[in-house]
Amino acid sequence: MSEKSVITSVLPGFMELLPEEQLEFDRIKSIIEETYRSFGFAPLDTPIIERSEALFAKAGSETEKQIYFVNKGKDDLLSMALRFDLTVPLARYVADHFNDISFPFRRYHISRVYRGERPQKGRFREFYQCDIDVIGKDVLSVKYDAEIPSIIYQLFKKLNFGAFTIRINNRKVLNGLLQSFGMVDKAADILRTIDKVEKFESQDDFVSALISIGLGRDLIDKTISFISIKGCVADVLCALKTLGVNDPLFDEGVSELEIVTKIMAESGVDESYFMIDLSIARGLDYYTGTVYETRFNDYPELGSICSGGRFDNLASLYTEQKLPGVGISIGLTRLFSKLREIGLISCSKKTSADIIVVPLTENNSSVSMKLARALREDGFAVDILLEDLKVKQKFQYVNRKNSRFTVVVGDEEEATQTAVLQYKDGESFTKENIAFSSLTSRIREML
Amino acid sequence: MSEKSVITSVLPGFMELLPEEQLEFDRIKSIIEETYRSFGFAPLDTPIIERSEALFAKAGSETEKQIYFVNKGKDDLLSMALRFDLTVPLARYVADHFNDISFPFRRYHISRVYRGERPQKGRFREFYQCDIDVIGKDVLSVKYDAEIPSIIYQLFKKLNFGAFTIRINNRKVLNGLLQSFGMVDKAADILRTIDKVEKFESQDDFVSALISIGLGRDLIDKTISFISIKGCVADVLCALKTLGVNDPLFDEGVSELEIVTKIMAESGVDESYFMIDLSIARGLDYYTGTVYETRFNDYPELGSICSGGRFDNLASLYTEQKLPGVGISIGLTRLFSKLREIGLISCSKKTSADIIVVPLTENNSSVSMKLARALREDGFAVDILLEDLKVKQKFQYVNRKNSRFTVVVGDEEEATQTAVLQYKDGESFTKENIAFSSLTSRIREML
Repeated sequence: MSEKSVITSVLPGFMELLPEEQLEFDRIKSIIEETYRSFGFAPLDTPIIERSEALFAKAGSETEKQIYFVNKGKDDLLSMALRFDLTVPLARYVADHFNDISFPFRRYHISRVYRGERPQKGRFREFYQCDIDVIGKDVLSVKYDAEIPSIIYQLFKKLNFGAFTIRINNRKVLNGLLQSFGMVDKAADILRTIDKVEKFESQDDFVSALISIGLGRDLIDKTISFISIKGCVADVLCALKTLGVNDPLFDEGVSELEIVTKIMAESGVDESYFMIDLSIARGLDYYTGTVYETRFNDYPELGSICSGGRFDNLASLYTEQKLPGVGISIGLTRLFSKLREIGLISCSKKTSADIIVVPLTENNSSVSMKLARALREDGFAVDILLEDLKVKQKFQYVNRKNSRFTVVVGDEEEATQTAVLQYKDGESFTKENIAFSSLTSRIREML
Repeated sequence: MSEKSVITSVLPGFMELLPEEQLEFDRIKSIIEETYRSFGFAPLDTPIIERSEALFAKAGSETEKQIYFVNKGKDDLLSMALRFDLTVPLARYVADHFNDISFPFRRYHISRVYRGERPQKGRFREFYQCDIDVIGKDVLSVKYDAEIPSIIYQLFKKLNFGAFTIRINNRKVLNGLLQSFGMVDKAADILRTIDKVEKFESQDDFVSALISIGLGRDLIDKTISFISIKGCVADVLCALKTLGVNDPLFDEGVSELEIVTKIMAESGVDESYFMIDLSIARGLDYYTGTVYETRFNDYPELGSICSGGRFDNLASLYTEQKLPGVGISIGLTRLFSKLREIGLISCSKKTSADIIVVPLTENNSSVSMKLARALREDGFAVDILLEDLKVKQKFQYVNRKNSRFTVVVGDEEEATQTAVLQYKDGESFTKENIAFSSLTSRIREML
C-alpha cells in the first residue's frame, strides 16, 4: 500500500461537519445547554468508556448487540466498552457518588454515545444526546414531572424551528386499564394491538383481534372507548374519569396527568403546545409514570424529537438505594441531520469571526495586528489575514469566510490612522473610511 | 454474581468529577474556547473513532502501543480505534475536505483523546486536549508563528492562575548549528548530551562526552557558547548572531526568532511573559521551525502547560498537497488535576444555580414556579425545590447547593406578593423581605 492510499473519509455512520456546519451545530447545542442551566441543572461529563459489566447490567438484548468494545490488543477483549446512552452512566454515577451529591439531583449531560447499528440515512453510530434528569432519594414529587415539559417548551421556543406539540401520557393509566381488565399477563399483546389500531381494515377486524387475545365484549367496549379519547386536555381528563375503569393505578395515573397538565398551564406553557396522547407508551419496560414525546407540527415524519419520562428506580442494579427520577433526552445528531434535510437550518452564512482584518501589504501587518487586538478587547471575534497574498486572493479569502465586517488597512489608511470598513449583509455591500478609534462604535451601530 | 455487586467506580486512569468540580472544569474550558474563538478560529468536532490505518500511518511506535481498538465482537478487531491526539484527525480532515475549506485554515478543537498508558498520578487514559492550529496551503507566513504566543498570553491572563512564561525556540537554530558542525548524522547523540548538560559533574565530563561523539575542540567551544546563551530576548538574539555559526538554516532560524519575538512585543505580549529558551526541542521528529512551551513561574514542577510549534507539512501521509501549519495544545485534564492539587483552583463554592426558589409549603409551589420562571426570563439560572420536604431538610438542600441567593415563599409572603431573599457571601448572611416585582433589581444590586 502506498502512503497516499490511506483512506481519509470518515467511517460510515459517523457525522463529520464542515466548519460552517459545526458553527450551527454548536449554536444549537449551546442553546440547549443554556436552557438546561437556566433551570439549575448541573453539568456532568462521565467517561465515554465504561466497564462492560456496568453496561451489560442494564442493556436490553437489542442494545447488547450494538455495543462497541474497547481493547488494547487481543487480551482482555470484553472488559471495557463505549456507552450506548447517558442514562446507564448516570445510574452508575449516582450509585458511586451517592454521598457526595444532594437530592433531588438535577444534572444535564450533553455528550456522545455509541451504537453499532447498521448505518443508514438519519441513523448514526456516534451521536450526541442532550439529557436532563432529576433524581430523588426515596421519593420525587410529581411536580418535577410537570417541570420537565416547561423546559421542553422554553427550549424549542428558543430554538425557533416552528410549532411543536409536547405529548403527555402516563404509564399508570395504560397499566391500570389492563390491570382492571385482569389482563396484566396479556398486556404486551393488547398494547401491540392497540398500537396498530389504525392499520386494521375495519373495527370488526380490530374487535376480532382483541377477542382472539381473550378480551370479553365489555372490555372491548372499554378499550374502544379508551382509544377514542381525544381532544383538549380538559376533555381527555373528563373522559378518562367517566370511563368507568375501577382501578387504583389507573386513578393514580389520571390524577398525575391532571396535576402535570395543570402545573404546565400555570407554568406558562401555552396550551396549544401540549396535549394528552393516550397512545404513547415509550417502550414497555423502562418508564413507570409520566411519559413525554415532542413532535414538530409541520414535520410529523421526524417522529419524536425530545422524549422521556418518569422511572421508579434509576439504579437498582448498582445500589440498594431507591432513586426515582424523571428526565428527557434529545438526539441532537439525528435532529441536526433531519433539520438540514428539510431546510429548517442553513449553515452557509455561518462564520467564525465577526470581523476580518486585512493588511493590504506586508508593511501594514503590524498596525493591523494592533487593530485586531483592540477590536478583540472590545468583544469581537477577529480573524486577521497575515499571509502576504495577492490582493485578489485576499478578497477571495474574505468572501469565503462570510464575515459581515472586513477592515482593510493599506499605506494610505495607516498614514491617517483610518481603515476601510466593508459591510456585507446578504446582497447589500457598503464601504466607508473610519478612524481606528471609531471602528468599534460604528460596527456596533451597524449590527 | 449478585446484581448489586456490579462495580460502579470509574475505570483507573479516567477522570470523573463531582458537579461542583465539573462546573469549574467547564468554566476553564469555556474561557479557552472563548479565547480561541475571539481569534477567529472555527470549531471542529471529528469522530472519536478513526480508521486504525489512518492513526497508524502517523503514530510513533510508543504511541502505537497505547492505541485503543474498537470492535463489535471477535471479528474485525483492528480496523477501528480511538484517536490518541487531535492532530492526526486534523490532518485527515484537511485532506478529506480540502476543497471545502479556505486557507489559511484556523480551527480549534476541544475534545477527548485516548491513550492506554499505565495509569499513574496526573496521567490519564482519557483526557481533553484544547488545540488550535493554522494550516496554510503551500505556504504559511511566519507571522502566524508570532500570533500563537499572543493567544497563549491572552488565554493565561484570562485564566488568572498567576505568572507564566512563554518559552520560544526555533528548530532551525538547533538543526542549523548541527549542520554547521557537519554532524547531522550524530544530531540525536549531540542533542541528548546537550539536553542533560546540567547533570554532568563538571564541564570536563561534558567535554569528554562530546569528544567521544566525535566533536572537535572548536565545535565543542561553539557548543558551550551556544548552550550558555541566556538573558533577555535582545541579548539572546545578539549572542546567536555573533556566535560565528556559518549556516543558512541557522541564520533562517535566528531571523524567524527575531521576527516572532518582535511581533509578539508589538502585539502587546508583556516582555516579562516570554523568553527565548534554546534548550527547547519538543521531540525530535515533528516540528520544523518555531516551538513553544509555557510554564507557570511559581510551579515549574508542572512542566509545560501549553506547547506546540510549526510543522512543514501536516498531512503528507494523506494528501500530496503541501500543508504547513502552526499550533498549540493544552492538556486540560492533566492541567485541571494539577491545579487542584496545588490549590490554584477551588471547586467548593461552585453552584449550578444563581438562585434557589423554595416554596415553604405545597400551597406555595404554584406561585413559586411562576416566580422562578420570571427570574429565568430576567437571565438568572434558577433551581426550584419542588419536593415537599420538612423545612429543615429544605434548608439543608439550599446549604449544600451553595447558591448565593435563596428566595423563600410561604403563605404570608404569597398573600403580600413578597418573598424572603436570603443572601450568602462567605460567612456573611442577610435576609430581607422583597416584593416579587423588585427581586431582580435587588439581586442585581447585590451581585
